[in-house]
Amino acid sequence: MTYCLGIRLPAGLVLAADSRSNAGVDQVEQVRKLALITVPDERVIAILSAGNLATTQAVVTMLREAAGRGDAASDLHSAATMFEAAGIVGAALRQVLARDAAFVKPYGDPTAGFLVGGQIKGETPRLFQVYAAGNFVEATDRAPFLQIGETKYGKPILDRALTLTTTLDEAAKLALLSFDATMRSNLSVGLPIDLLRYPADSFSVANLLTLEEHNAYWRELRQAYAAGLASLVAGLLPPPAG
Amino acid sequence: MTYCLGIRLPAGLVLAADSRSNAGVDQVEQVRKLALITVPDERVIAILSAGNLATTQAVVTMLREAAGRGDAASDLHSAATMFEAAGIVGAALRQVLARDAAFVKPYGDPTAGFLVGGQIKGETPRLFQVYAAGNFVEATDRAPFLQIGETKYGKPILDRALTLTTTLDEAAKLALLSFDATMRSNLSVGLPIDLLRYPADSFSVANLLTLEEHNAYWRELRQAYAAGLASLVAGLLPPPAG
Repeated sequence: MTYCLGIRLPAGLVLAADSRSNAGVDQVEQVRKLALITVPDERVIAILSAGNLATTQAVVTMLREAAGRGDAASDLHSAATMFEAAGIVGAALRQVLARDAAFVKPYGDPTAGFLVGGQIKGETPRLFQVYAAGNFVEATDRAPFLQIGETKYGKPILDRALTLTTTLDEAAKLALLSFDATMRSNLSVGLPIDLLRYPADSFSVANLLTLEEHNAYWRELRQAYAAGLASLVAGLLPPPAG
Repeated sequence: MTYCLGIRLPAGLVLAADSRSNAGVDQVEQVRKLALITVPDERVIAILSAGNLATTQAVVTMLREAAGRGDAASDLHSAATMFEAAGIVGAALRQVLARDAAFVKPYGDPTAGFLVGGQIKGETPRLFQVYAAGNFVEATDRAPFLQIGETKYGKPILDRALTLTTTLDEAAKLALLSFDATMRSNLSVGLPIDLLRYPADSFSVANLLTLEEHNAYWRELRQAYAAGLASLVAGLLPPPAG
């Protein structure tokens, strides 16, 4: 399983992915699920992957190799908009599934999904979710976050606390609390977490943080949240008698 | 969809169910999903239902009608233990599915699941989850809560805050916060909530509370929790730079 989260705010993007890959409980590995394709001062495109690992690796590798080659159908360096970029990711997914899906199905699910977030000069930052069918939807002011993989455990904290005026740092905290909730409830989502804060118009991926198990901030965040939540709940009135 | 939650603690049981029934978005109704079968000073058996409404109503109605008739295979009044009671519910479910499932399948899923919680004199309070197959598992000290229906959104708050020493009132708060998280994220889980606090050895269902939308306590709880959570998150340190 996987959990990837994208948040699109006026302040920029927060993108986060876990690193657990498992093909059965006896084959558990770490995999980077956040890929970056950048052109300095001009574009930042992040691709976050969930689903069949052979499929997602094939899609990301094909797109990396096609970047800068000038083929409009597959070149993320020449996509004019993030909408085009999402379409390119969807097309690459269709190509891989057309080649592999029938062979893989006897063994398991060949499909995959992606979050595609970033900014191309001339646009504001944008965020898309590419479905297994290769079609896609975009995050909007009314739906500012998108999730793929194990999405449910980590959704309530975002539904409660994320607003359009949330800063990137605040959104990054909420993203990590969303991952903490998910990892407590689903062992197949695991550390390290890759977390990118992308400030609008920065065209910089400098603020990419990888949180490992022994990271002091990660431990403090979880402890402070757990303690704060316990005291918050303790302070609430109990239900009246029935 | 449905959300039902059972919590089994040394202090007793907390059982809660929502009331939304929907067979498509244009057929939304309120249904009581928490049924009680009691014998004064001797037993309290609660059955919480999720799944196909015709199936769950058939099971509960059959069990109500069989109660007190003395047939060991179906009489919840004469079950010697809660383990036997759970088996009786599972057997009734198998009977209904054997009769109806093949006819229902062309139109939808005929299956159902139950939580069976309560106390029979001579035992401590016990809690079981009856699967669609009619088999069942029991809540234990290591797994003190069981959920059926839309289970994921409401699980993190329980994973974080519920312990074996939690009082019934505290557990009831956590149950309601778990329902709030679920209802925010899934519109097909809805009010009113039926909430039973059953103190161990009380053999009383007096503390059965029904929370409607305009219930003052319910509104205050949600507002106080939302405000407290926002201030808790605001007080946490942001992640360090990447």
